[in-house]
Amino acid sequence: MLKLIPLGGLGEIGLNMMVVEYGDTIFIVDAGLMFPEAYMLGVDYVIPDMDYLRQNRGRVSGVVLTHAHEDHIGALPYLLREINVPVFGTPFTLGIVRHKLEEHELLSTAALHEVLPREHLKIGPFEIEFIRVNHSIVDGVGLAIRTPVGMLVHTGDFKMSHTTMEGMLTDVNRFAQCGEEGVLVLLSDSTNVEKEGHTASSHEIGAELARIIQAARGRIIVALFASNIARIQQIINITARLGRKIVFNGRSIEVSVSIARQLGYLSIPEGMEIDIDDLSRYPDDEIIMVTTGSQGEPMSALARMSAGTHKQIKIHDQDTVILSSKFIPGNEKAIGNIINNLYRHGANVVYEKISNIHVSGHAFREELKMMLNLTKPKFFMPVHGEYRHLVLHCRLAGEVGIPEEHQILAQDGQIIELDDNGFQIRDSICAGRVLIDGKGVGDVGRSVLKERRLLSEEGLVVVNMAFDEETGIVVYGPDIVSRGFVFETETGYLLQDAQCVVLEIVEDITPDVPNRVERMRQRIQSALRQYFFFTIGRRPVILPFLVEI
Amino acid sequence: MLKLIPLGGLGEIGLNMMVVEYGDTIFIVDAGLMFPEAYMLGVDYVIPDMDYLRQNRGRVSGVVLTHAHEDHIGALPYLLREINVPVFGTPFTLGIVRHKLEEHELLSTAALHEVLPREHLKIGPFEIEFIRVNHSIVDGVGLAIRTPVGMLVHTGDFKMSHTTMEGMLTDVNRFAQCGEEGVLVLLSDSTNVEKEGHTASSHEIGAELARIIQAARGRIIVALFASNIARIQQIINITARLGRKIVFNGRSIEVSVSIARQLGYLSIPEGMEIDIDDLSRYPDDEIIMVTTGSQGEPMSALARMSAGTHKQIKIHDQDTVILSSKFIPGNEKAIGNIINNLYRHGANVVYEKISNIHVSGHAFREELKMMLNLTKPKFFMPVHGEYRHLVLHCRLAGEVGIPEEHQILAQDGQIIELDDNGFQIRDSICAGRVLIDGKGVGDVGRSVLKERRLLSEEGLVVVNMAFDEETGIVVYGPDIVSRGFVFETETGYLLQDAQCVVLEIVEDITPDVPNRVERMRQRIQSALRQYFFFTIGRRPVILPFLVEI
Repeated sequence: MLKLIPLGGLGEIGLNMMVVEYGDTIFIVDAGLMFPEAYMLGVDYVIPDMDYLRQNRGRVSGVVLTHAHEDHIGALPYLLREINVPVFGTPFTLGIVRHKLEEHELLSTAALHEVLPREHLKIGPFEIEFIRVNHSIVDGVGLAIRTPVGMLVHTGDFKMSHTTMEGMLTDVNRFAQCGEEGVLVLLSDSTNVEKEGHTASSHEIGAELARIIQAARGRIIVALFASNIARIQQIINITARLGRKIVFNGRSIEVSVSIARQLGYLSIPEGMEIDIDDLSRYPDDEIIMVTTGSQGEPMSALARMSAGTHKQIKIHDQDTVILSSKFIPGNEKAIGNIINNLYRHGANVVYEKISNIHVSGHAFREELKMMLNLTKPKFFMPVHGEYRHLVLHCRLAGEVGIPEEHQILAQDGQIIELDDNGFQIRDSICAGRVLIDGKGVGDVGRSVLKERRLLSEEGLVVVNMAFDEETGIVVYGPDIVSRGFVFETETGYLLQDAQCVVLEIVEDITPDVPNRVERMRQRIQSALRQYFFFTIGRRPVILPFLVEI
Repeated sequence: MLKLIPLGGLGEIGLNMMVVEYGDTIFIVDAGLMFPEAYMLGVDYVIPDMDYLRQNRGRVSGVVLTHAHEDHIGALPYLLREINVPVFGTPFTLGIVRHKLEEHELLSTAALHEVLPREHLKIGPFEIEFIRVNHSIVDGVGLAIRTPVGMLVHTGDFKMSHTTMEGMLTDVNRFAQCGEEGVLVLLSDSTNVEKEGHTASSHEIGAELARIIQAARGRIIVALFASNIARIQQIINITARLGRKIVFNGRSIEVSVSIARQLGYLSIPEGMEIDIDDLSRYPDDEIIMVTTGSQGEPMSALARMSAGTHKQIKIHDQDTVILSSKFIPGNEKAIGNIINNLYRHGANVVYEKISNIHVSGHAFREELKMMLNLTKPKFFMPVHGEYRHLVLHCRLAGEVGIPEEHQILAQDGQIIELDDNGFQIRDSICAGRVLIDGKGVGDVGRSVLKERRLLSEEGLVVVNMAFDEETGIVVYGPDIVSRGFVFETETGYLLQDAQCVVLEIVEDITPDVPNRVERMRQRIQSALRQYFFFTIGRRPVILPFLVEI
């Protein structure tokens, strides 16, 4: 039996990581991260729990990457640090991976293997073919995996859209050939299953961008995702037509452009690119700047421009700022604030909500149906989505003719066993999420997050007191200090009154009472909790330090 | 000169409050709140800074409410507690206000005056007429305010949509008559100025709801905004046609339905409504439940159903749950999680993204243009929006023919002086935002929020030590305790090593050093900061308590 074990991505958008297993061989499709949810206070990012791989470390033979977005490669350094297996990917994907591993000081030991679309590689009993897909990054691929029980097709992240950079279209013919050969199971991207119809043509997006840029009288600043090389090429082409100069600003965009250029995926006419420090030598209406920060990231170039703190760029009227990207849910407020501030500086701002300047990289419903009809799988398993996306994608497959008993509605951590006769979903392995905070991997859990939440909501009150060990007399305090609770100059009386509350308890419990300090600690905690809730309606964390000396 | 002073709502969505002033008379249009932004940790809600009213308390003659949404009436209790002025509103608006003031123990002293659409009221030199508008709540009005310098029209929140409950349509004829009479200045709702075209017809929404409900085989649960009485009436009508029973569940919906019923705005056929405790007496396919929680509010009825903790309702397959409301930005994750969990319990879930079951209450661009053309104002001032909405609404007015020099692009706290000859925007008054946390009004400010943020991100480390005052010898500690920092059983060595760091400093600073304790405190703080950042990449708040006894 073939085993599929999703470690992430089947229950959330992001965190994509799938174990494929047959006999003694395991390989992994993607190793992605997820950005923390709002309740994960202080967490930098989230990676899949890799315990299953740790336990089967001897059998893990490789990682195959579909493309270079963080939700597909972000967990790779954490995987390789523990289990150093060969990594397979297309040239641009490995270019980004190289840069990432260098930052993690893992590049020198990593084994990276370049594979091109329509090329094959062998891992144990698996023969894996890369099939080009169109996505919002260059060099994305889906996989056709020939296994002893039949062919598995994994779409990666894809869309069908029929206009893009040369050579970057989804290789529908190859998917069709797989369909003709016979596909046992299709794993397909569910991200946009809620969206009717099909993604807009990037040709139209380019035309709209050109129209806006052509109409602008002053400087133009375009913010977008650093890895969206096709969009960057569109802007370069427009810049060339208008005879403007181009500036790339922002670390991630500089990295991405440099890798794409080296690989020949991006062509910039000689003499067009200038350095940001030479900007002052050109009039505003000869400049197009390409930058980062389209998601409102607080330290990004665009955020600094909107706040007026960017070293080289001061926004003024006549500037046109174009946000050529999606408003990702959760970032809307931050993006909105940046747009408001850009308008306050007098710029004209063009963004997705008011103009047709972005298109998603993930297939809409009509495209998902096309993929199902191209590959004609016997079984269908939706991937890359929250639970509702997976349910809706199963229903969609039903409309295309996959019977319910051939739809595999699986979730992270479940073991799907499969061959030509059927499938079963077996008991789960432990597939949680591991939180990364600073250098700590997994040491921030539920209890630490709960403490952070309590601290964040109402702050903290610390009570300090010392007693003479023998006589029980107070030798210091009560000293009461707060953080994040109240603004003390205005409500200082609150903490003074709290001192009285504490002193009453101390008087009440005479030195001869057994466990006196422990009892005081408990009474102080509950009395202050009541007192603060009664007077000001808040429940700060209360930390009494009572020491005997 | 007429003075307009926006205290809120011109720079944000929500917090709507506008001062209108002529000579010795001030009155206020709306007194709304705003829900806190993500960075306002622990804050319950936000109200406008009312300092200008406090300083001019003797001249404030009334509050006129356009409708009963929280962003228009939520700050009223805080206003009335300080300045008890008469309140004017339509019957449903005052019904909700009465309930709110009762909760704040302010009802007995409040002076509430009912005004109907097309009725007039006089406040000093102002003659104010209520004009019916269609919005996502019943009994909304705009205002035609006749002043000594000319007529001001304030739209309130409105849309033009031509199908709704009987008698709840926007009174376009009256706005047209104002236009014929001559409007000096139009203040118009900017919320949806980013949206092309016009709002969908609520007739279509009703038809879609009916189709979904008719097709459902089991129990039906509809979640919506409690105040959306027109939508509730649609559901009652569908329920009647199908001969089902209806249950209202959730506190706010019960209040809203009861007020609307008393006023005759909602008609429920005899015997249709049943109590939630009688549910078990009816088969599932005879039930329609109307409930709250469509924004993913964690304590709402729908959230408890999805979590499996609702006392009377356990979700199972055959249930159909309909979220007939918008996904408000910021709530998307919470709503998504509820939908995922409802699917996990086997329910079918229908929501805005996959079905046409909600329509906005705010005019889209075509409707905004219609309002401009109906009222033909000399001056135009956009209200109810973030800065970008106000800018875009000014531009839209320009398209309709309001010249740029007649567009008033104002912001919270500015004083707009206006008469037939022109306007000027004068220096600002202090118009900040006041944060409400528990019973505290305004005592949580920037510094407290910053402390909460620091505590929330990396937690807290407390160091406790006591020294003999004379000898300088350590008599207690160092005792090191953390909260929200690390999970101590896994990384306990961190805190042990931190003890050594502290002890080294103590040894280093001999008892004869002047200001010894203060110097130790500073050194401990910076040494621990460095130590934790180096070892684990985090920067907790460090609180050293060093006392001399």
